[in-house]
Amino acid sequence: MTQANDLKAWQQKAQAQTELVLERLLPSETQIPQRLHEAMRYVTLGGGKRLRPLLVLAASELGDADLTAVEQAMGAIEMVHVYSLVHDDMPAMDNDSLRRGKPTCHVQYGEATALLVGDALQTQAFEVLSRPTALPAERRLKMLSVLAKASGSLGMAGGQAIDLANVGKPMNQAELKQMHGLKTGALIRAAVVLGALACPDLGDGEIDRLDCYAAKLGLAFQVIDDVLDCEADTATLGKTAGKDADNDKPTYVKLMGLSEARVYAEELIAEAVALLQPFGEKAAHLRQLAEFVTARKN
Amino acid sequence: MTQANDLKAWQQKAQAQTELVLERLLPSETQIPQRLHEAMRYVTLGGGKRLRPLLVLAASELGDADLTAVEQAMGAIEMVHVYSLVHDDMPAMDNDSLRRGKPTCHVQYGEATALLVGDALQTQAFEVLSRPTALPAERRLKMLSVLAKASGSLGMAGGQAIDLANVGKPMNQAELKQMHGLKTGALIRAAVVLGALACPDLGDGEIDRLDCYAAKLGLAFQVIDDVLDCEADTATLGKTAGKDADNDKPTYVKLMGLSEARVYAEELIAEAVALLQPFGEKAAHLRQLAEFVTARKN
Repeated sequence: MTQANDLKAWQQKAQAQTELVLERLLPSETQIPQRLHEAMRYVTLGGGKRLRPLLVLAASELGDADLTAVEQAMGAIEMVHVYSLVHDDMPAMDNDSLRRGKPTCHVQYGEATALLVGDALQTQAFEVLSRPTALPAERRLKMLSVLAKASGSLGMAGGQAIDLANVGKPMNQAELKQMHGLKTGALIRAAVVLGALACPDLGDGEIDRLDCYAAKLGLAFQVIDDVLDCEADTATLGKTAGKDADNDKPTYVKLMGLSEARVYAEELIAEAVALLQPFGEKAAHLRQLAEFVTARKN
Repeated sequence: MTQANDLKAWQQKAQAQTELVLERLLPSETQIPQRLHEAMRYVTLGGGKRLRPLLVLAASELGDADLTAVEQAMGAIEMVHVYSLVHDDMPAMDNDSLRRGKPTCHVQYGEATALLVGDALQTQAFEVLSRPTALPAERRLKMLSVLAKASGSLGMAGGQAIDLANVGKPMNQAELKQMHGLKTGALIRAAVVLGALACPDLGDGEIDRLDCYAAKLGLAFQVIDDVLDCEADTATLGKTAGKDADNDKPTYVKLMGLSEARVYAEELIAEAVALLQPFGEKAAHLRQLAEFVTARKN
């Protein structure tokens, strides 16, 4: 098998594992309140790149991971990501009607339910991560702390607030980097760090190195997102294309130009991959995921 | 001092302590994103009965409590409560414009910010509760689990979903009890249980007994809420009165009648207080808080 085929096979297997994990960690739609649970499953199951759970899994391959902890982290981080999408799609925010090729939550279930779906998915993430594993309790608390810090007002939600405050305003590259570092980067870093924390044999030095890898990866991911949003059409993306430009949102493409933005992303990925060198072959999937980010089409 | 005066003095002291705790546990409004942090502080600081933090504090008096853990729990549970109010007040839900005598969050800061304020306050609650204390790590994990279970789709958010699904529909007393048991009761029970968990010397039997006390208290609280909503006018309540009746929401008053509802609440409080008997004088504030619930005017 070629390396590209190998990654594709691993990705598909890991995506299937993510689906099973989420299926198991979400409340059943036979449980009361059924409609809320049905909607939580509607938005979470059946699609998405699953980049964050894949990063958890790939990072966990660097050490002697506790499988239960890895799967809890995979599920929890995807729930946080999906909750943010559900709220972000609402009329008060981006007012998107299509997500992953399906009607968005508020279109399908109404705004009040969409609000509760996002709220309850966030809670479920923390509930899942507070369940028992074989890891030392201090390590489990650290995982909860990492997820909370990455998701809140000094992480993802903070990035969304900065984004919101800057619609229609010019931003320089440093400001854009800070905004995306919180909005997208914080959760991508948390994914990698959670995967590493699920390995009791990985220490602070190794986790810090992985955090640096993830910071560069997260930034590259956002730059490529801007590139794709500029290039792609609605059919390929499975979401409404050109929204960012329509909304006068600052993007890397507007700031740097299309080809320069792509070059910048490729440089970031090269730096990220270089940081993985001490981990040798165990980092194969983290390396391949980084390269996938610049190669992806949606 | 009479018992009533004693409670009033304790309550005022405990409310002031809650304010200080929240003040310290919320991000400063000088931190980026400032507007989000300003809005998080606007909705959380400066008011409210603080029933849940007071229950945490009163329950923690039953044992040899860790003060840091108690204050984290006081702050975290109030943040969850306030986040739920912020989202509940939004146009997609109750569309309220007044809360604690001030314009609601979406009126003051806009809907998009209100959405993020609720989201980020929920995250902050879990972040705060994941901070170090002198309690054993397993006990700290248990506290996180209790808060998550009480807040999510099988707790508070689930109760809101049931409430939403039943506007304009008849509900019998069992259904109403189930709905409120989740919507209001779950968090009130969590408050008492968290206070007890902050005492390493309190065991499962004692915690279960306190949980029963809190379940009865939570139900009585909701019954009285319905009574007050029926009786009171906007000026006294500091929120728009008569909303539940307007919205065709099922209430205990509609189901039982006004005076029967008040009698039912008083019976529940008597049962709750009886459960505190083994704790003797240490339970004075829990006992008084229970009696306060039926005596309150808003």
